[in-house]
Amino acid sequence: MAAAPAQVINVERKLAAFTEQWSPKIVAEANGWHVKLVKASGRFVYHRHDVDELFIVLSGTLMIDLRDGETREVHAGELYVVPAGVEHRPDAGEYCAMALLEPVGVPNTGDAPGSRTAEDVWL
Amino acid sequence: MAAAPAQVINVERKLAAFTEQWSPKIVAEANGWHVKLVKASGRFVYHRHDVDELFIVLSGTLMIDLRDGETREVHAGELYVVPAGVEHRPDAGEYCAMALLEPVGVPNTGDAPGSRTAEDVWL
Repeated sequence: MAAAPAQVINVERKLAAFTEQWSPKIVAEANGWHVKLVKASGRFVYHRHDVDELFIVLSGTLMIDLRDGETREVHAGELYVVPAGVEHRPDAGEYCAMALLEPVGVPNTGDAPGSRTAEDVWL
Repeated sequence: MAAAPAQVINVERKLAAFTEQWSPKIVAEANGWHVKLVKASGRFVYHRHDVDELFIVLSGTLMIDLRDGETREVHAGELYVVPAGVEHRPDAGEYCAMALLEPVGVPNTGDAPGSRTAEDVWL
């Protein structure tokens, strides 16, 4: 018996339901992946994950600094995959809203736990 | 050595690069998942997959008929997960653009191959 079909998720409505920054909110799960919404401003910390991380920018612009000196500029309506093992530092500037897609259980600060580490919670 | 960091993908620009309907175009890969863009109008065929299928509607409205008689109405800016094993029939109405996220190699017509089966290609 298949699981009961899920409900439709309205992204704008979900975004309106929280204000915390750099605190991923899980809104959907599929095949062991979570879809998380994040609001952010300013710089995060350098970190890396042992899995790929898919960013979809919903509003604003996300700068992603890579340790090799390169920066990726991801605008609203654009997506970017940070490959597993690549050290990166998101910089949301004044304000950015984004969706993150990654396997269940990936901590937001990857290999660099600390004060910015946030527990993912369902919204 | 990690893979070279990927390029930023602009969804609108990718959508503008093809016209075929019901013909998924792969634009990104992460952790064994593909992100596919689909343009569509009208009804597809009933089918099911052995994996969950995540729909993100980008423009228009996607009606997803479920075999049990229920229908999900997914508008632009909304997402919906069709669970593995659930028979469904997307109906894109006049026009709909969507992103699909699912494991690599999932055929668009699932367990119902036929004239609507399309090979996924990278865009």
